[in-house]
Order: sequence, then C-alpha cells, then structure tokens
Amino acid sequence: MLERIDHVGIACRSLEAAIEKYTSVFGLTVTSQEVNSEQGVREAMLAVSPGSTAPFASYVQLLEPLSDSSPVGKFLARRGEGLHHVGYAVANVTQALATIEAGGIVRLIDSRPRHGSMGASIAFLHPADLGGVLTELVQPASLPGPSLA
Amino acid sequence: MLERIDHVGIACRSLEAAIEKYTSVFGLTVTSQEVNSEQGVREAMLAVSPGSTAPFASYVQLLEPLSDSSPVGKFLARRGEGLHHVGYAVANVTQALATIEAGGIVRLIDSRPRHGSMGASIAFLHPADLGGVLTELVQPASLPGPSLA
Repeated sequence: MLERIDHVGIACRSLEAAIEKYTSVFGLTVTSQEVNSEQGVREAMLAVSPGSTAPFASYVQLLEPLSDSSPVGKFLARRGEGLHHVGYAVANVTQALATIEAGGIVRLIDSRPRHGSMGASIAFLHPADLGGVLTELVQPASLPGPSLA
Repeated sequence: MLERIDHVGIACRSLEAAIEKYTSVFGLTVTSQEVNSEQGVREAMLAVSPGSTAPFASYVQLLEPLSDSSPVGKFLARRGEGLHHVGYAVANVTQALATIEAGGIVRLIDSRPRHGSMGASIAFLHPADLGGVLTELVQPASLPGPSLA
C-alpha cells in the first residue's frame, strides 16, 4: 500500500528561519511554498533529492501555524518545535482509506481525501491507533511514467 | 548532501506490538531486526517500498528501549510513544559531518560515525540546532551500482 516516505512534517515557529536553516545546512531547495487555510498553516516543501523525479522524490515539509488555535499551533504549545507527522505516498488514497477502514485497526481522521501540498490528495490517520504517530497518506497530483533508463 | 529520507525512527513500548501493527495495517515487511546495545534499543527495520532497491529504499524503524535510562527510554517517559527522529541517507557520512561542523550552525552529537542499523555508518546531529528534530545521517553499508534500466 505504501510506496515510499513522501515527507516528514516539521512544526516550526518561523517558516523563514526554518527554510534558511535547511537550505544553508543541508543545501535543500524549496520546491513549493503555499498557505493551506483549511489546515491552518503556511508551509514549504523542500526536496531532499532534487535530482530524483517522482515516484522517488521525498520532501522536508516545514509547517508554521496561522494561529495558536490551529492543530500545528496547539502542537507547538504542547510539544514545542519538532517532528509533527510522517507522510507516505500511495497510488490511490481513496482505495487506501477504504482498505484501512475495513481493517478496523486504525481510525481515520479524514474519511475522504482533502487538498494537500502541491495539489496532492491527502488523508490523515489517527495517531492514537498508530503508536502516537500522526500518519498521512499522500497521493501526488501527478505521477509521470517511468523515465529511468 | 542529503540523498533521500532513509527512515523515520519511531519509539514504541513493545517492538512486537508495533511490528504487528505496521505489518497488518500497511503490509510492510520486516527487513532486519537487531539489538543495538550501544544505543540501548531493540529495533526493527520495515521496508516501505520492498520492490525498491538502494538507493531508493526507505524504512520505518521501530525502536524499543532496552532500559528506562536509555535515550529512547527517557524519550518514552517524557513524550510517550511517537516519532523519535528522521534519518537521511548520505553518500559519505564522514564528509557530511565535516561539512556540517565547518558550517558552524548545527552541533554534532557524534563527531565521528558509529554503527547503525543493517551495518550502516551513522551519526546524529543536535536537535536543539535543528528546530527540535533529532536528525541522523546514514551511510548505508553498501550501495549497489545503478540497475534501473
């Protein structure tokens, strides 16, 4: 079901400061920067392996809350800056949700996909059923055909 | 410098229970299981994309502490189960440490590499200098040549 680690989501107080750190220390590059009002965040996706193309690309996702009452705002108040969630790529997020729901082990936060970074369809699974790990399923906006040769 | 997300490290109270969850919910498979006395953990590496070969493989690393006084044991007491660290693959961990140390922004926990999962050479960077994220550099034991065609 899971194809790769798509991204790690990192909660930060200042998006600009976090971007500056990841670009200067590790040489990462910003692929996308956007505001997701529904999730209450300003965010940036930094490609870990810029030479790679999907389905092999993976990202550091930096998340700054739009308000203290947003989920990431509450996370910062409770835990401070740090790892917030992990996102795994799937071929079909609707199908993956149906499979997981049928399994009856892990509750869904999102019973149907919503809008994620860079046009992806995403859904979150309940951390209480996954050992405290907030887990996201990510169906990228487009998966170009293989061009590895 | 960073080539991909090698793994996410997840702290758990019971390795067996965590393995059972990740295999049954997501269909992941256990690639390796070992005890790392130096780090005070029993651990399992579960391949996220078993069809992929290095350098594209990525893993969920499940970590159960050997004692309450180990780093993961203290993490569990303080934060509970959940995301513990993220590991990025690098081509040469010694070189990466030298570059990061010269940068003067992030302190090293390990000034020289030590033994990690599946024979890798690894080193940790200080979370206080990386927005609360415990960050690991991973030089896999062997990187087979490209065989993508």
